[in-house]
Amino acid sequence: MKQNILITNDDGINAKGLRALIEVASEFGKVTIVAPEMGMSGMSHAITMTNPLFLRRIKIADSVEVYACQGTPVDCVKIAVDSIMEEAPTLILSGINHGSNSNVSVLYSGTMGAATEGATYNVPSIGFSLTSHLANADFTAARYYVKEILEKVLQHNCNKSLCLNVNIPSIPSEEIKGIKLCRQANGFWQEEFDKKLDPRGREYYWLVGKFINTEPEAADTDEWALRNGYVSIVPVQVDMTDYKTLKKAETWF
Amino acid sequence: MKQNILITNDDGINAKGLRALIEVASEFGKVTIVAPEMGMSGMSHAITMTNPLFLRRIKIADSVEVYACQGTPVDCVKIAVDSIMEEAPTLILSGINHGSNSNVSVLYSGTMGAATEGATYNVPSIGFSLTSHLANADFTAARYYVKEILEKVLQHNCNKSLCLNVNIPSIPSEEIKGIKLCRQANGFWQEEFDKKLDPRGREYYWLVGKFINTEPEAADTDEWALRNGYVSIVPVQVDMTDYKTLKKAETWF
Repeated sequence: MKQNILITNDDGINAKGLRALIEVASEFGKVTIVAPEMGMSGMSHAITMTNPLFLRRIKIADSVEVYACQGTPVDCVKIAVDSIMEEAPTLILSGINHGSNSNVSVLYSGTMGAATEGATYNVPSIGFSLTSHLANADFTAARYYVKEILEKVLQHNCNKSLCLNVNIPSIPSEEIKGIKLCRQANGFWQEEFDKKLDPRGREYYWLVGKFINTEPEAADTDEWALRNGYVSIVPVQVDMTDYKTLKKAETWF
Repeated sequence: MKQNILITNDDGINAKGLRALIEVASEFGKVTIVAPEMGMSGMSHAITMTNPLFLRRIKIADSVEVYACQGTPVDCVKIAVDSIMEEAPTLILSGINHGSNSNVSVLYSGTMGAATEGATYNVPSIGFSLTSHLANADFTAARYYVKEILEKVLQHNCNKSLCLNVNIPSIPSEEIKGIKLCRQANGFWQEEFDKKLDPRGREYYWLVGKFINTEPEAADTDEWALRNGYVSIVPVQVDMTDYKTLKKAETWF
């Protein structure tokens, strides 16, 4: 079946990773691109509630429609599905992000915010990330794995609420050992705020964090897979209910 | 045990709901408030990566320290835990939000972004919301239930990664039937974008959504509880792995 694909990202409309994703996705059907005007890294599942959303139509070709939106990645998905696309997308793709979105980073990631938003609409959605922040990162291996993963997902007539967090190690293609299905690694981001004074004496801080992996040896986690040369895939759900605690806390209230 | 409590919100430092939460929390120990300068509704788990974070110390009393931060609710938690507080908080509270954060709204909510961030630091964290958006909403019943819930949670020596999403119906106290432990209701936000033209002819949109509950009869959901006069409590987890799909997709790749 020819797909009707919505593509977005969080690095903005001009990112190299977005172009790489468009190239691969175009082989699977019609693509519509609605991406943020500017970088929206770390915007998570944020939506724009107090400002208007400006939308700029950039180019219309036979099979590619491109829009830039002055909003977040989730805004892009919403405006695409509810206002721009004539027919509901059959697939929503986000990325390819410049930088990893493994472990709890899934919570902060604009790339994955867009993908989980897609899943709330009951459209299979995949976020792709390469573990390199460089603007000119090499997406050769990433393109190969995006294609392979899309083929396999479509082949299995996946569940409509399917949402995948795919991370691709930034190493030469021939060193990648394959694809590994994983769970999200436990841990947290520890910040070392860099405190400064502005010319008027006001204190300000830059947020500079590092991820503390609390289970570095767990071979079923995405962090382990990436460190060991695998492409990691974590299926993600939008139901955040903690069912274990739900059961345990039954007698508390 | 006297608690060392961090309080934040997403409606900003001047919100009435924040003052209500400070009043109740102060009965349980020392409180430190680090809240956004401005309204941050819908900011989810967003962090500020490309701008500096300005921090303004507003007032120091014996037992209350108050800071306003030009960042998101998650920024507030990070800067409080990693830079401001001398000792790690024993409890992180967020709210009381003006407006419901039940169902999938947990994904978009800045109030719950701060609470889940607390849980990544292994500090028991609770987000409180009242189902009224009014700036001068009546927090009388909310204050009562915040206190009751805090007492019961502390009494049970809860797990350090405990995270609760508490929603309180905006109805007179005497009409509230009690507290109900729930799961997050399934559904999605459907947007009806309000399209306009600015004076220079540029298209812009206002995001106006309504929640479509796909299981209105499910009595174990937060939506049902709120509609039927209960305070809803949903335990929330930061592990977004979809373990069912993880198992099912084992043979796909």
